[in-house]
Amino acid sequence: VWGIDVGGANLKVAATSGACAARPFALWRDPGGLAGALRELLDELPPAEKAAVTMTGELADCFATKQEGVHAILDAVAAALAGREFRVYLTDGRLAKPAEARSQPLLAAASNWHATATLAARRHVPTGCGLLVEIGSTTADLIPLAGGEVASSGRTDTERLLAGELVYTGVDRTPLFALLPSCRLRGRRCGTAPEWFATAADAYLLLGEMAPEPENCQTADGRPRTLENAHGRVARLVCGDRTLITLDEVRDIAREFREAQLELLAGSVAAALTRWPGVPATIVAGGQGEFLARSVAERLGLADRVIALSEVWGKAASRGAPAYALAALAAESVW
Amino acid sequence: VWGIDVGGANLKVAATSGACAARPFALWRDPGGLAGALRELLDELPPAEKAAVTMTGELADCFATKQEGVHAILDAVAAALAGREFRVYLTDGRLAKPAEARSQPLLAAASNWHATATLAARRHVPTGCGLLVEIGSTTADLIPLAGGEVASSGRTDTERLLAGELVYTGVDRTPLFALLPSCRLRGRRCGTAPEWFATAADAYLLLGEMAPEPENCQTADGRPRTLENAHGRVARLVCGDRTLITLDEVRDIAREFREAQLELLAGSVAAALTRWPGVPATIVAGGQGEFLARSVAERLGLADRVIALSEVWGKAASRGAPAYALAALAAESVW
Repeated sequence: VWGIDVGGANLKVAATSGACAARPFALWRDPGGLAGALRELLDELPPAEKAAVTMTGELADCFATKQEGVHAILDAVAAALAGREFRVYLTDGRLAKPAEARSQPLLAAASNWHATATLAARRHVPTGCGLLVEIGSTTADLIPLAGGEVASSGRTDTERLLAGELVYTGVDRTPLFALLPSCRLRGRRCGTAPEWFATAADAYLLLGEMAPEPENCQTADGRPRTLENAHGRVARLVCGDRTLITLDEVRDIAREFREAQLELLAGSVAAALTRWPGVPATIVAGGQGEFLARSVAERLGLADRVIALSEVWGKAASRGAPAYALAALAAESVW
Repeated sequence: VWGIDVGGANLKVAATSGACAARPFALWRDPGGLAGALRELLDELPPAEKAAVTMTGELADCFATKQEGVHAILDAVAAALAGREFRVYLTDGRLAKPAEARSQPLLAAASNWHATATLAARRHVPTGCGLLVEIGSTTADLIPLAGGEVASSGRTDTERLLAGELVYTGVDRTPLFALLPSCRLRGRRCGTAPEWFATAADAYLLLGEMAPEPENCQTADGRPRTLENAHGRVARLVCGDRTLITLDEVRDIAREFREAQLELLAGSVAAALTRWPGVPATIVAGGQGEFLARSVAERLGLADRVIALSEVWGKAASRGAPAYALAALAAESVW
């Protein structure tokens, strides 16, 4: 069985074996290209007869409503699967036929977190309680787990934002000014430019927590992920350039961003853990930002409670967690 | 004489007579199209033999450095002017030959505020002191004026951010999450999505302070500036859509945004006015956000000190203030 996760900025697919493939795909720019992009990605996996799909891409603003987005994504998935049978993962944990998912688009929308959380709960929190801390490129899911099940209180994205179970911050695409309306510079506070000039990936690259990727041009300005370009992008945040703002200065800005993001997440995790006052809880850490999830646990004095998905599921499966989890869940169910 | 203002998101041109023309132009997406776009815009003005140019577009991230941006913009202006003589406005108030501007790109960069402030100081604050509060689509300039001259302490954009003379917030392009990392919704705080989902223009449209423009698709999602689309865009800020978040709810979010932007600007204006403690200062209000500049003055108890550029220069000249001011300054100088 293939698991397919259609995000707004990234596509991820996985096979039950653990094989995973992923690629950035700016759905909001090219909704018509989704089927083709999925087909190419699925070609990288071992063959399968069936597939299950989950998504968050219906939020992309090429779709006027979530219903429109869910329908368009299911159309593209059907085209990419070329006649293979598939099911749609719903936020109540069921694998529904496409026609049912179409008639209940709000259950099919933004369901990918639930797949990851369900597998994490079954495998790693079969008893007692825990919290999935999956920090992705764009968002973080903080999902309460208890007794082998998902114990979340929100279902839709808006409910999950209100419940603090979705924190819209990530280690790659989040623009720096989202956490830094101003920053320290030359001993003073400096306003920042609310433009798509520099993102979290630039900060973590400058801090050595993410590696340069000279082939990867998924950046704010479309230039490669190199130190020099990250320098230039972060300099632009304070309306400078790399000749006017030094590397040390942009590193300080990156550090301030990291600290703000860590504080936001640590506060959110601490709030989520108040569900189980006094109870030792397992922290299941995963996603592209697993390194930051570990830092969050350390800051909260919970480093010894961490189960890292990169270790128990493998690195590729941790980064493509929803696709991998969905493939595993679908393989276990009968349809 | 023509005055030309090359911004990163908008182009403005004006003639000494007061005739103005403007158009949105996403320079970062299409730097190669600048000359053609300028030529079309200049065709809307009465003929002129000479021109003067000012800019902020060199900050656009299609340019690796400001020097690269200044040179590229001057190339495009020269091409658009097809042999006409032109001068470049510098942040020291001089009109320099293109070759000199090329050799001092940091004086040519981000000079447009200085043109507006110089004309405003000469005409409206010939004696005593004042503050230019020009709120544009993207940024606000808070420029001290005294005795007919510009009394700013910053020259480059970074210096101006540090000095509080440039506040990177505006009434059109500013994304809502820049001022609302969270918002009130259904009696609780709701995190917001740091995506380019909704901008200030949506908020002011929902509040009736900006009119719908069904022909104008310069919006976060490329859909027209209508109430229905603004509703959908702001709903997306809390990861909803217009079927899930009511019009009353998005209006409340718009109100919270307006209040946050007003507070940011009022605080910045109050700080700027501490230059002249105890002295009644003139507030010269202008730009696309002149309505908000008036609200700022009201909040600070300075409503009776306001000179509105839309009234003294005319509405078109107030919106295209740097281009108009530059045309007027250039006509007064000998070259």
